Amino acid sequence: MRSIDLNCDLGESYGAWRMGEDEAVLAQISSANVACGFHAGDPDTMRRTVQLAVARGVAIGAHPSLPDLQGFGRRELAVSADEAYALTLYQIGALAAFARGAGGALHHVKPHGALYNMAARDAALAAAIAAAVADFDRGLILVGLAGSALPQAGRAAGLAVAAEAFCDRRYRADGSLTPRRDAGAVIHDIDAAVAQGLSIALRGEATAGDGSRVAIAADTLCIHGDRPDAAAFARRLRSALGEAGVTIAAPVGGAQA
Amino acid sequence: MRSIDLNCDLGESYGAWRMGEDEAVLAQISSANVACGFHAGDPDTMRRTVQLAVARGVAIGAHPSLPDLQGFGRRELAVSADEAYALTLYQIGALAAFARGAGGALHHVKPHGALYNMAARDAALAAAIAAAVADFDRGLILVGLAGSALPQAGRAAGLAVAAEAFCDRRYRADGSLTPRRDAGAVIHDIDAAVAQGLSIALRGEATAGDGSRVAIAADTLCIHGDRPDAAAFARRLRSALGEAGVTIAAPVGGAQA
Amino acid sequence: MRSIDLNCDLGESYGAWRMGEDEAVLAQISSANVACGFHAGDPDTMRRTVQLAVARGVAIGAHPSLPDLQGFGRRELAVSADEAYALTLYQIGALAAFARGAGGALHHVKPHGALYNMAARDAALAAAIAAAVADFDRGLILVGLAGSALPQAGRAAGLAVAAEAFCDRRYRADGSLTPRRDAGAVIHDIDAAVAQGLSIALRGEATAGDGSRVAIAADTLCIHGDRPDAAAFARRLRSALGEAGVTIAAPVGGAQA
Amino acid sequence: MRSIDLNCDLGESYGAWRMGEDEAVLAQISSANVACGFHAGDPDTMRRTVQLAVARGVAIGAHPSLPDLQGFGRRELAVSADEAYALTLYQIGALAAFARGAGGALHHVKPHGALYNMAARDAALAAAIAAAVADFDRGLILVGLAGSALPQAGRAAGLAVAAEAFCDRRYRADGSLTPRRDAGAVIHDIDAAVAQGLSIALRGEATAGDGSRVAIAADTLCIHGDRPDAAAFARRLRSALGEAGVTIAAPVGGAQA
Repeated sequence: MRSIDLNCDLGESYGAWRMGEDEAVLAQISSANVACGFHAGDPDTMRRTVQLAVARGVAIGAHPSLPDLQGFGRRELAVSADEAYALTLYQIGALAAFARGAGGALHHVKPHGALYNMAARDAALAAAIAAAVADFDRGLILVGLAGSALPQAGRAAGLAVAAEAFCDRRYRADGSLTPRRDAGAVIHDIDAAVAQGLSIALRGEATAGDGSRVAIAADTLCIHGDRPDAAAFARRLRSALGEAGVTIAAPVGGAQA
Repeated sequence: MRSIDLNCDLGESYGAWRMGEDEAVLAQISSANVACGFHAGDPDTMRRTVQLAVARGVAIGAHPSLPDLQGFGRRELAVSADEAYALTLYQIGALAAFARGAGGALHHVKPHGALYNMAARDAALAAAIAAAVADFDRGLILVGLAGSALPQAGRAAGLAVAAEAFCDRRYRADGSLTPRRDAGAVIHDIDAAVAQGLSIALRGEATAGDGSRVAIAADTLCIHGDRPDAAAFARRLRSALGEAGVTIAAPVGGAQA
Repeated sequence: MRSIDLNCDLGESYGAWRMGEDEAVLAQISSANVACGFHAGDPDTMRRTVQLAVARGVAIGAHPSLPDLQGFGRRELAVSADEAYALTLYQIGALAAFARGAGGALHHVKPHGALYNMAARDAALAAAIAAAVADFDRGLILVGLAGSALPQAGRAAGLAVAAEAFCDRRYRADGSLTPRRDAGAVIHDIDAAVAQGLSIALRGEATAGDGSRVAIAADTLCIHGDRPDAAAFARRLRSALGEAGVTIAAPVGGAQA
Repeated sequence: MRSIDLNCDLGESYGAWRMGEDEAVLAQISSANVACGFHAGDPDTMRRTVQLAVARGVAIGAHPSLPDLQGFGRRELAVSADEAYALTLYQIGALAAFARGAGGALHHVKPHGALYNMAARDAALAAAIAAAVADFDRGLILVGLAGSALPQAGRAAGLAVAAEAFCDRRYRADGSLTPRRDAGAVIHDIDAAVAQGLSIALRGEATAGDGSRVAIAADTLCIHGDRPDAAAFARRLRSALGEAGVTIAAPVGGAQA
């Protein structure tokens, strides 16, 4: 029987500013990537978010970012591999403390935004991030873009990895994502996005922008929490996967350290 | 045989800015309180500092602070007890990750600056900090001002506590510290500071500003890393304690969680 | 003919986080207090907000805060008078640059949140803030709580001042505000809040929590932008004032430097 | 008679952390580039630095940076042209306020670190920075790397520009700087650095790394404040220029707005 993980970025409020429909989304997903204070998620928000995830039985991941509150972690910053190691380890530790405080445990790590994109193409940066995860806990799962440098670095570091695919981003014929600045990069139509998620989960393939079929081997599907219809979309996708006989479940990690 | 801990705040550089003589001081002390990024100590500095402490066999403590880089954590900020809990847990987790990454383990927690002072007199804040420490790891030692609300809260939370005393701060007859803004608050003379440290370690007492004897029951003596002669002072104190037959050792904590 | 100013805090978004209904509120008010980056308002938000205010002909004020993004400037921080001077001057300068860049000019300064409250009761802090305003431009208007230390310090510094009153905060018999933590501190009912604004504008008095009449001499009424119904409330108040023959206009400042 | 400007980055302390020998350097230079809070220079430091510069009669420049305290503004961050405009205008305004508060006036703007380097090669970013300077005050001088996109953008915006050259960086045959990561990029020897400064000031040329002569048309020479011997170097250069009949003076700007 087929199984796939549904993950979503959560806990992206900051102080007085609210973002996302965390409670509604948590009811639909199997993995939550929780902001760790560098792009969003002050300590109070982290605490609250982790408590909600524990209460829902959703697997908790750290979602470390470049230090850039104003840019929401979406602007590339030229950090060295050593800096990437240290900022990743810092944020993993901080989030794991809230997981422990809430009676849960950290399950995975998924870099955020620009750090995710940089780690997808830069092997040295990817290795530094994987080393930070492994040094913290060899039982954690490293989540990264399917087919990119990050899952590769995770495997090389002896970590279990989860390859991530997107329902609502258009792929190119070579399996890469159409850059956001290009027309058609985002699949706004909810039916089309659900269809792409289903196709990836069931057949391991998507239709690229040029109409060709492209193979996408994914362990987890990303729900973008900043879609205006995030919770509704997650509900639709979950229901479609269920009807097709696909189980929704967080990936199982390696041996605990 | 008598034994006492010597602790010092370390890792208080930030980015391009250097502070303290960490390597020289580490050779003299038994416990290091390492800045966690909120008043000083970016992730790279934390990593480097913890590695040095592990190499020296010095016990590693988290030194959480109010969020105030510009004020070096020395300005009181009106945080709620919930906010104090969350910011303490965040910083403990971050530092513990570097301890783990360096092959060591977290040993104690000592709040920094204004947070330390607020926790010494505000029972609700002290309880929140103690709860954060206990929720992270019941085996950690909570360090606070001898005779103040913080060690009391730690004991109530079931934690081992270490009462801290100062060699180079003048006590008042009631056992409290002469406020820094008052004349004579700081004992600049190195001989007088060593003598006070020795008196506290050997006889559990100090001479107050008014000449009276005041009882100070302390488990750990603070070396101020920002004294211009911090390393020399630590060497002198260590040597004087040794000649008096006092062992220098980090306190032993409770049962690990 | 009677005239009063309607002011509202604006530009309190930050990066990806939105707050307030700035465009709708701008249509109803005569003065905007624009966040300057310390509690809200990144440079891009400041630019956009100031451009909107210039386009609407609304008087532009700097809204300097203690440095506390996570706490939205609402937590008191023990800054010295020198620090208050410097952080006020810094933020005034930054906002004035955007006013100039948009073809407008700075009109007034109103401290935000905890800084506003501290300046209302601490004469040294109030004097430091007034000095920063005067050193920047003696033609600016300083806005502060009616009857408090801040307008007093402004007058002593030779500044024109605007005394501020609140439609939706309950006054006490001595003219001070009922603290937010007390029951009944906020007047949630829109009719009651409009009635209090009208009473202050027309008769210079409000009904205190104990039912007594209290004199409130105000030049400007505050519209809380974080009321869920801020724009609707502003519209209602403006219309009620108009029907009562009160003109809405920003106060006129002193001589330009 | 020949004349050249000597400029140095100043005010790069932050809170409790000290950097540079500002007072000693100020005695030797004609232009100070003062940090504006984004890479260094909290408001109190800005105030103090500007007061020193006014007292010394040294021309005051804003030294805006990417927002990156931990990286000291030396790490490239992928800001848009709009973001560069806004962060530049913000920092110029903040610094100009301190100049005004100290009885002085802003004279020039020189971007810092990674922003300087990005503006040297990216025409759109350079144009945004030039627009921010011009929108604030058309009488300001824009300082940028000689021969790069920034002085070009400044001239296109109608600003007076000052082309900057370096005494202690090795040039390449095409007039560009040898990247810092390459061997020989920095001229550590004080005699050789003084000689290069003299050659640029007198003959408008330097000896490139490959031994060839390269033309460098410069209005201002940079003294690196973070050289361990910054003040001594500045004294030596000033004296050598004086003996060669070169006057040290800040450039004269365009018409005031």
